[in-house]
Formats: sequence, structure tokens, C-alpha cells
Amino acid sequence: MMQTDERHRLSSEEFVGWLRREGERRYHDRHPFHVLMHDGNLTKAQLQQWVLNRYYYQSRVPIKDAIILSKSEDPGFRRTWIQRIHDHDGDREGEGGLALWLRLAEGVGLDREEVASFRSVLPGVRFACDAYVQLVERVSLVEAVASSLTESFAPDLMSRRIAAWEKHYPWVRADVLEYFRTRVTRARRDSGMALEFVCRNATTYQLQERCVAALIRKTEILWHLLDCLLPGSAAAPDGTRPAP
Amino acid sequence: MMQTDERHRLSSEEFVGWLRREGERRYHDRHPFHVLMHDGNLTKAQLQQWVLNRYYYQSRVPIKDAIILSKSEDPGFRRTWIQRIHDHDGDREGEGGLALWLRLAEGVGLDREEVASFRSVLPGVRFACDAYVQLVERVSLVEAVASSLTESFAPDLMSRRIAAWEKHYPWVRADVLEYFRTRVTRARRDSGMALEFVCRNATTYQLQERCVAALIRKTEILWHLLDCLLPGSAAAPDGTRPAP
Repeated sequence: MMQTDERHRLSSEEFVGWLRREGERRYHDRHPFHVLMHDGNLTKAQLQQWVLNRYYYQSRVPIKDAIILSKSEDPGFRRTWIQRIHDHDGDREGEGGLALWLRLAEGVGLDREEVASFRSVLPGVRFACDAYVQLVERVSLVEAVASSLTESFAPDLMSRRIAAWEKHYPWVRADVLEYFRTRVTRARRDSGMALEFVCRNATTYQLQERCVAALIRKTEILWHLLDCLLPGSAAAPDGTRPAP
Repeated sequence: MMQTDERHRLSSEEFVGWLRREGERRYHDRHPFHVLMHDGNLTKAQLQQWVLNRYYYQSRVPIKDAIILSKSEDPGFRRTWIQRIHDHDGDREGEGGLALWLRLAEGVGLDREEVASFRSVLPGVRFACDAYVQLVERVSLVEAVASSLTESFAPDLMSRRIAAWEKHYPWVRADVLEYFRTRVTRARRDSGMALEFVCRNATTYQLQERCVAALIRKTEILWHLLDCLLPGSAAAPDGTRPAP
């Protein structure tokens, strides 16, 4: 059998195909919680739980993006990547993705301060989101960027989510879905740039392999966040379940 | 004698006075290399050496600022602090403090690519600048911000530097001194905000003490950078010299 360290660097096409395959089959759009959500089968309390817990994930995003920024020696890369932090923090109080998420929280009937305090975040959700920040801290720049590539699957999920919420949860005011709308175009722009960077900078087979591993770890983080919201559903994305 | 852990938190006025005293007497404007520079006693080669080596310090600044950004949980703080990264990286290729410094490098007769490559940076300069990044990584947010307070002494130094260069080194084109000009107002704005943050967030005497320690460490970093450029001058800022 061919040794890993003898493998040649894959072509960009093969590498992108590999990332896409591994990412797609583990992406959390297939998680039972998302299936319930999109079929209109979540209770109001479950939807609220999701919004509250997912806000902790959202709050980690500008932090992990600042870590990625600090790992780059290239002002050109930083000039592009810094836009992600602005997207979440906004340029003024009340603007940006985090503020939009808090508006969503109010829209589903949650108390804004309660959500922003992280007081009621589930322990497992906290572990998973903190693991994302730690992953990005630990790995090389190209692996950290690769871990963000789940975004390339986000636009579809966002579009389906908007349609599902408008249909099944009409008690949620349509204007609080604004965050999901902004993500459709931004996730497309950001993941395109990230994929191009990863292809250019994963210059050996070993690095390509580590990028795929980082992306898989990231899908596990997103997946586990939903596991915590649906106890008993803790199957791995590939269908295996932890031994009882 | 009163135990450290029994000390009460100092008033903002006392604390600011302490930071100012410790910072001022160790600030690198008193370093023999800067004295030579401002008296017009540096050779062209020495001035070039300074510009080349100091660029490594400049290049660490947006990196340490991104680390500081990643340590904050407050979008409001991040919205303000992120401006520092824009100041150095610019919003477009060729803009920002790093690009201005490379223009300064060309203005003193250096090769831009050589400077940007860091190839000829002195080992001690690299150690000191890397120690700055590591310090910011290791300490708490308020200490990391305190370490930036050397900036409150920068506007005076910048003004004196511009005057000295125009008088003593007329072979350097005045327009390449633009970076120093931008720093006069920006360092004033930034250090005012940082001082206010440190006063508000150093909520115990122990934290105030650690902030002073971080500022002192930072003055040592700036001081050592100049030591490396003037071998034999390696006295500590307080006048003591390492044993031979």
C-alpha cells in the first residue's frame, strides 16, 4: 500500500472535490434537529433553545476570525479577512451579525439580555464552540482557513431555512430573519475566497490532508451543537452512534 | 509592612500617575541610539539599520492587535480596536502604516523587498519583537492593552524625530516622513482610549500591578531593539548594566 508520505500533492480539482465530499456528507443540514426545524416540527421552546445556544457560536466567530488574522503575515490577506469581523461586529452599536442575531432572539420571544449573557448556554454547546476557537488557535493558518469552509454549504441551508421559517413558524416576524438573508451572499463570497486560499497554500499532500481533517473537525463542532439540543440523537454525521 | 494582597485598588489618578512614572523613565526616547539620532550623529548606514530592523517591529503590530481583538468579548471594544489594524494594513494595497514604512525605507536608500523579507533583521531585534507578541498572547486583555500604553509617550518623540530628521538628515526626502506624522495624532487618540480602558478594567490592586508590569516589559522590548543597533550600549533603562 502506498505510504501517506509518498503521496503527491493533489490537483486543485481533486483537492476541492475531497473537501467538498467530506464536508457535504457531514454538514449539519442533515442533522435530525435541522430536519425537524425545516419540516416545521419544532416547538416554540425548541426554536428558542436553538436561537439562544447558537448565539454562543455566533459570538465565537469574530474571536476565531481575529485569531486567524493574527496568524497571517500578509497585509493583503488580513485586509480581506478583517471584513468578516466587521460583518459580525458591525461598524456601529446595533449593527452587524451579532446585533441581528439578538434581534432574531427577541423575534422568537427571548429576552435579549438573557441571550447576550450566555447564562443559559448548554455545557456541551459551550464545549463545542470553545473547541472551535481552540482548534483555530492550535493549527496553522491554512488549516484554520480550511475549517471555515463549512460556509460553502451555508447559502443553500440559509435559503431553505428562510423559506421553512416563513412557512412553518409564521409567528416569527419575517424582518428578524435578516441575519440569514445577509449570510446567503456573504457566505458565498467568503467561502470562495477561503477555498482559493486553501488550494494555493496547502502545498503538500500532508497539508491537504490536514486541511480536510480541520474541516471535518469543524463539521463535528456544528453537528454536536445540534446534538445537545436534541438529546438522544447523538449519532455521528456518518451515521454511526456512540456505543451505549 | 503591608502585604501586597491587602493593598486597596488605587484611584484612577494614582494608577495613571504610576503608569506614567514607570513608563516615562524607561521610554526609549532616552536610549543612547535615539539621542545620537536626534542630535544628528547617526551615519547613513546606522539610520538604514534602524529603519530596516524597526520594520520587523512594525510588522508585529497588526498581529498583536489582532490577538488583543481575539481576547475581547465586547463588540464595542473590538469595533474601536480594529481601527488600529486598518491603520497599519490600510484599506487598499499600498496604503496604511506598513506601506508608509516601506516608503520610508526606500527614502533612506534601502531596497524595499529586502526590508519586507525580514532577511537581515538582527536576531536580538527578532527576539524582542516576538517577545511582544508572546506577551500579548499570554496575559489578560487589560494587561495586553496596558502594554500598548508606551504610545502615550510617542507623540512627543514623533514630533522631535520629524524636526531632527529634517534638520540633520536633509538627504531623506521630507515626504517619506509621513508615517511619523500620522502617528502624532493617532498615538494620542489610541493611547487615550487604551488608558481609559485600563483604568476601568484593572479592578484590583493586583491587576493594576500586573498592568504596570506589562508596560515595563514593553518598554524593555522597545529599549532592547535599540540596544541591538548600538552594541556596547546595553544598559537597562534605569541605568544599571548587565554584569560583564
